[in-house]
Amino acid sequence: MQRVALLTSGGDAPGMNACIRAVVRKAVYHGLEVIGIKRGFNGFIEADMEPMNLSSVADIVQRGGTILRTARSDQFLTPEGRAKAYENTKRFGIQGLIVIGGDGSFRGARSFYLEHNLPVVGVPATIDNDIPGTNQTIGFDTAVNTAIEAINKIRDTATSHERAFIIEVMGRHSGFIALAAGLAGGAESILIPERPFSYDEICEKLLRGFRRGKLHSIIVVAEGASGGLEVGRKIKESTGIDTKVTILGHLQRGGSPSAADRILASRLGARAVELLMNGATKMMVGVSKGEIAAVNLDDALTQAKTIDVEMYHLANILSL
Amino acid sequence: MQRVALLTSGGDAPGMNACIRAVVRKAVYHGLEVIGIKRGFNGFIEADMEPMNLSSVADIVQRGGTILRTARSDQFLTPEGRAKAYENTKRFGIQGLIVIGGDGSFRGARSFYLEHNLPVVGVPATIDNDIPGTNQTIGFDTAVNTAIEAINKIRDTATSHERAFIIEVMGRHSGFIALAAGLAGGAESILIPERPFSYDEICEKLLRGFRRGKLHSIIVVAEGASGGLEVGRKIKESTGIDTKVTILGHLQRGGSPSAADRILASRLGARAVELLMNGATKMMVGVSKGEIAAVNLDDALTQAKTIDVEMYHLANILSL
Amino acid sequence: MQRVALLTSGGDAPGMNACIRAVVRKAVYHGLEVIGIKRGFNGFIEADMEPMNLSSVADIVQRGGTILRTARSDQFLTPEGRAKAYENTKRFGIQGLIVIGGDGSFRGARSFYLEHNLPVVGVPATIDNDIPGTNQTIGFDTAVNTAIEAINKIRDTATSHERAFIIEVMGRHSGFIALAAGLAGGAESILIPERPFSYDEICEKLLRGFRRGKLHSIIVVAEGASGGLEVGRKIKESTGIDTKVTILGHLQRGGSPSAADRILASRLGARAVELLMNGATKMMVGVSKGEIAAVNLDDALTQAKTIDVEMYHLANILSL
Amino acid sequence: MQRVALLTSGGDAPGMNACIRAVVRKAVYHGLEVIGIKRGFNGFIEADMEPMNLSSVADIVQRGGTILRTARSDQFLTPEGRAKAYENTKRFGIQGLIVIGGDGSFRGARSFYLEHNLPVVGVPATIDNDIPGTNQTIGFDTAVNTAIEAINKIRDTATSHERAFIIEVMGRHSGFIALAAGLAGGAESILIPERPFSYDEICEKLLRGFRRGKLHSIIVVAEGASGGLEVGRKIKESTGIDTKVTILGHLQRGGSPSAADRILASRLGARAVELLMNGATKMMVGVSKGEIAAVNLDDALTQAKTIDVEMYHLANILSL
Repeated sequence: MQRVALLTSGGDAPGMNACIRAVVRKAVYHGLEVIGIKRGFNGFIEADMEPMNLSSVADIVQRGGTILRTARSDQFLTPEGRAKAYENTKRFGIQGLIVIGGDGSFRGARSFYLEHNLPVVGVPATIDNDIPGTNQTIGFDTAVNTAIEAINKIRDTATSHERAFIIEVMGRHSGFIALAAGLAGGAESILIPERPFSYDEICEKLLRGFRRGKLHSIIVVAEGASGGLEVGRKIKESTGIDTKVTILGHLQRGGSPSAADRILASRLGARAVELLMNGATKMMVGVSKGEIAAVNLDDALTQAKTIDVEMYHLANILSL
Repeated sequence: MQRVALLTSGGDAPGMNACIRAVVRKAVYHGLEVIGIKRGFNGFIEADMEPMNLSSVADIVQRGGTILRTARSDQFLTPEGRAKAYENTKRFGIQGLIVIGGDGSFRGARSFYLEHNLPVVGVPATIDNDIPGTNQTIGFDTAVNTAIEAINKIRDTATSHERAFIIEVMGRHSGFIALAAGLAGGAESILIPERPFSYDEICEKLLRGFRRGKLHSIIVVAEGASGGLEVGRKIKESTGIDTKVTILGHLQRGGSPSAADRILASRLGARAVELLMNGATKMMVGVSKGEIAAVNLDDALTQAKTIDVEMYHLANILSL
Repeated sequence: MQRVALLTSGGDAPGMNACIRAVVRKAVYHGLEVIGIKRGFNGFIEADMEPMNLSSVADIVQRGGTILRTARSDQFLTPEGRAKAYENTKRFGIQGLIVIGGDGSFRGARSFYLEHNLPVVGVPATIDNDIPGTNQTIGFDTAVNTAIEAINKIRDTATSHERAFIIEVMGRHSGFIALAAGLAGGAESILIPERPFSYDEICEKLLRGFRRGKLHSIIVVAEGASGGLEVGRKIKESTGIDTKVTILGHLQRGGSPSAADRILASRLGARAVELLMNGATKMMVGVSKGEIAAVNLDDALTQAKTIDVEMYHLANILSL
Repeated sequence: MQRVALLTSGGDAPGMNACIRAVVRKAVYHGLEVIGIKRGFNGFIEADMEPMNLSSVADIVQRGGTILRTARSDQFLTPEGRAKAYENTKRFGIQGLIVIGGDGSFRGARSFYLEHNLPVVGVPATIDNDIPGTNQTIGFDTAVNTAIEAINKIRDTATSHERAFIIEVMGRHSGFIALAAGLAGGAESILIPERPFSYDEICEKLLRGFRRGKLHSIIVVAEGASGGLEVGRKIKESTGIDTKVTILGHLQRGGSPSAADRILASRLGARAVELLMNGATKMMVGVSKGEIAAVNLDDALTQAKTIDVEMYHLANILSL
C-alpha cells in the first residue's frame, strides 16, 4: 500500500475535518501518499481529487463542515458510476479508499470493493448516530451539545406563565439525538420515531407538572416522530396551555466539534489507515465496548441499531 | 424617598437580573429600602412582594430570566386594578416605583402616576429593541448574539449542494433583531416587517449568487415579516433550490446576558434610582447619543422608533 | 432500604448537580426517602442535612457546581469523626450513603462502612479523571471542552509572528485533561506528569515547525508537569521565540456540564440507587467497556489508573 | 479615486475580518478596485499585496484573526521605510490607504500622508479600546465577553470554602477590559493601571464579604496594574485566604467576533471607503455620541482617552 484516497460523503458532521487530518497525518507518518477526493463519490467519478500533505490539514481540527466537501451521489449507486471511479483509481494509482460518512455511503463502498477488489474502510460520521456496528458516530456528541445549549437557553425564559416549549431536533428515522438531548436537558417528554407516544399522556404529564408547581415544561421531538409545530398545536388544543416551538434544523450540523468528537475522529481516522496498511479489504472502524474496533462491512450493514430503551425509561423517571 | 419598589414586566429579557441587582444595591447604598414585586403588575395588585437586600441579588448578574418573574397583567390596564395596586403602596410605604419592561408596561406605569401621583421610572428591557426614547434596550444585544451563533453554525454545514438556509428570528412588529443579526451574520437577504420585500428579488439574488459560485445562502426573517417555513416553501417553489428552515423561537430570550447588556442594565438601573431620589415623577431612562439619558414618559411613549435604513442598505451592499 | 443519604465531596465538578438530581428522583421513584447532606463529610459529622424531594432538584441539571456544596473534611479522616457521622445516621434513620466525589472521598466512605457497617456507594466525579475503576469520571468531558474552547480562541490570533502559546491546564498528578485537550486541540506538544519531557525536543519541534511554515505552535501543560509561566520562560530562553502563557485555573471546574457529563451523571446516579436497593455494601459505579458497571471499592481503590499511551503517541503523530 | 489599498496592523482583534469584508465590498459596490496588503506595513514596504474582489472576503465575517495577517513594522517607523512603501503605491496605482489597527499604526499612516500626500483613513481596531477619538474600538466587545465567560465559569465553582479568585485580563496601559469585565462580571475588586489601589482595602473588602456570608470573591486585574499571580500571593499572605489565579492571556484576542463588533466593523469599514471617495486626506473613523463619526487624525492622536470614572465607582457600589 503506497497511496490511499479519502473522501467525505453524505450529510456533513462536525469532526469530519478532524478525521481528515488524522487520516492524512497518520498516512504521511507511515510514508503513504494521500489523495483527497472532493464532493464525495461525485469527485471520485469525475476525478476531482488532489494530493494532500501535512499542510493541507493544518488548522482544521477545530472547524465544522468538511474541507473536502460532501455530497450524495446518485451515479455511484450504479455499477457504471462505480466503474468510472475505478478507472480513476488506476489513473491515480490509488490502492485503498477511506470513506468518512454514513451507512448509505458504506453500502456504495462495499459494492465498489466487491466489483473492483479495491480495499475500502468506512469511518462512521453522522450527527444522527444511526450507523450499526458502532456505538458512537463522529458528530453525534457535538449535535447533542448543540441541542442542549438550546434547551439551556429556553430554560431561562418565561417561568411566569404556564407554558410548554417544544424543541424539534434532527432524526428522520431515529431518535438518538432526541433521546440524548432530552435526557441531558431534563425534558419532560421525548418523542422519537422508535417509540409510540400518546398526546393524552403527554398532556396529562404536562398538566400534572403544572399542578405540582412546575413553571414550564420542555418537550423534545425528533423530526421523524412529528413536526414540532404540529406537536405545539395539538398540545395547545388539548390543554389550552400556550406552546412555543423552536426548530433547530441544520444548525445541529454545524459548530466547532466537541472534544469527544475530535478525539473519536482522530482515533478512528488513524485506525482506518492502520487497517488499510494491514490488508483490510472491506471494513468499518467504530466504537465497541468502549474501545476502537474494526468490523467487517458485511456485518455492520446487516445489523440493526436500536436506541437504548433503558435510557428512554431513565429519562422518564428523571423528569417526574 | 425612603422606600422604592421594583418589578419586571412583559416578556423577559437577558439582563433583567443584572438590572434588578443594580437597582437594589444602588438603592441600599443610598440608604433606601427596596421592595421586590413578583410577577409584574399582578404582584403589585395582589401584594405579592417582599423586601430585598444586598444578598437578595447575590450571584444573579450572570443569569438569564428574572428572579422577580414577569407577567402581563390585564387587570393593571384598568383604573380599578391600578387603584388596588395603589392601596398596596400605602400599605407597604412605597414612595416610588421602578418598572423594568417594555412600552406597554410603561403606559401602565404612566397612567398609575397620573391617577395616584406616585413617581414611576421605566427601564427599557426587551429583546426586540422596539421601545421609543432609547437607542438600545436591555436584552437586545444578547438576543442578536444568540441569533448570530445560530447563523455561525449553519455557515459550517453543507456547502456542497446549492442550498438556502432560512432563519426565523423574533420581531412581531419590528425588524431590529433580524436587521442586526442579518448584517452581523452576513445574510444574503433580510426580511423585516418595516420594509416591503419581493420573493422575485430574493430568488433572483439567490440564483445570481449560486451562478457566481456561492455555495450557500442565508436568509434571515423576522417573524412579523413572514413565517420561516413559508419563506422556505416559496423559494423552493420558485427556484427549485432546496431550503432548510431554522426557527429560533424563545431561545432568543434566554442565555446568560452579554457583557454589553449587563453593563447597560447596571447603568440604567442605577440611574433609575438616582432619578427617583432626585424627584422624578414619570420618567424613562435610556441611551441617547451614546450616553445614559432620561426622558419624560410622555415624550418617550408618543415617539415612533424606526429601524436604521442606512444599516439596511449596508447589509444589502455587504452581502453582494 | 427506606432512607438514603447523599453528599458531594472533594473538588467540585460539572455534572454533580445532574447526579444529585438523578439520585433523588430515582430514589423517590422507588419510594425511598432521600436526605441531602451539605458540605461533604463535614455536614455528615455536623448533621447539616435535610430531606430532599422531586422539587429540590428542579432546574439544576444544567448548572455547574453542586447545590449540596462540597468540602474536604479532615475530621472524617479520623475514626472519631466517622463515629460522629454514624451517630447522625442513626438519628436520621439513614440506611445507605451515596458519595459523589473522588477516590479520597471513597477511601473515607469505605472506612466508614468497615467500621459501622452502613452501606456506601461511590459515584466518581472529578474533572481530573484520575479515579481508578472507571474509564470516565463526571466532569472530565466538560473540563476538556472548556480547555479546547480556550485553544480554539488562541488559534485565531496572531499568526503573523513566530510565536508559541502555552496553555496550563489542571492535573496536579495526572495528565488526562492535558492529553485529551492537547489531542483534540491539535497541540504541538503535551507535557504531562506521567511522561518525561525534554525542553530540547520541544524547542526542536517548535523550530522545525516554524521552518516548515507553521505560523504558531500550541503547547498544553498539565500543572503537575510544570508551571506554564516557567515553560514559556524556558522556551523563550532556548529559542528566542516569543511565548504567551494562558493559565486556565479554576474556570475548568465551572460551566454548564456537557451533554455527555449530564448523561453519565444521570446514569451513574440512578445506578447507585439501584445498587443500594439491591443490597450493595461498599461499591463504586463507573464506566467499564463502554457500559455502566459496578465495582467493589476494595478493588477500585487498589488499582492504578494510567493514561492511554497510545493516545499520547497519536497526539504526537497528528501534530507533525 | 479608482484604487484603494487596505491593511491590518498591530495586535489582531476580533472583527478585523468583518471590517476587511466591509471595505472590499463597499469599495467594489462603488466601482473601486481594492488591493489587500499582507502583514501590515511590512507587506506595504515589501510589495506583498494582491487584488481583492467580492469572493476574497466570502465567509470571513464570523472569523477571528485577520486574513491579511498583521504585524508590527519597525521599518515603517522610519522615513526610508515609508518611502519604499510609497514607491509601491505608484507601482500598483494605489490612491488611498485604509489602515485597520491601533494608534501606533495611525501615527505611521499620518506621517506617510504628510510625507507623500497619499490619503489615509484609520479604522480603530484593538481589544484594549485605548484609542483616542472613538468611544469603542473593534474587538473590545468580544474581548470583554470572553472575559465574562471566564468569570461565569469561575462563579460556578467551589463555593464551599472561603476562597478568592483572581482573573488577570489584558491591558498593559489601560483598564478598559478590566473595568468592563469587572462591572459586567460582578467582581468584588477591579485593579487597573489608571487608579491607585491598596491591598489593605482589597483584603478588608474580602474579609468583610466573607463575614457577611459571601462564599467567594472575584478580583479582576488588568495586567498593567499587577500580575495576577502576585495579587494572589499578596492576598493570601495578608488574609490567609486561599487564592486561585486564572490568566486569560491571548485567548482574549481570539474567538468569533460578537454581533456588536461585526456591526461596528462593517459600519466603520464602509465609512472609511466613503471618506476616501469624498476626498479625505488623513482621517480616522470612530464612534462618537453613539454615531459613526470621522475625526482628523491630528486631533485623534493628540487627545487622551480616559476610563469612565463613573463606571468605576458604579462597579464598586454594585459589588458591595
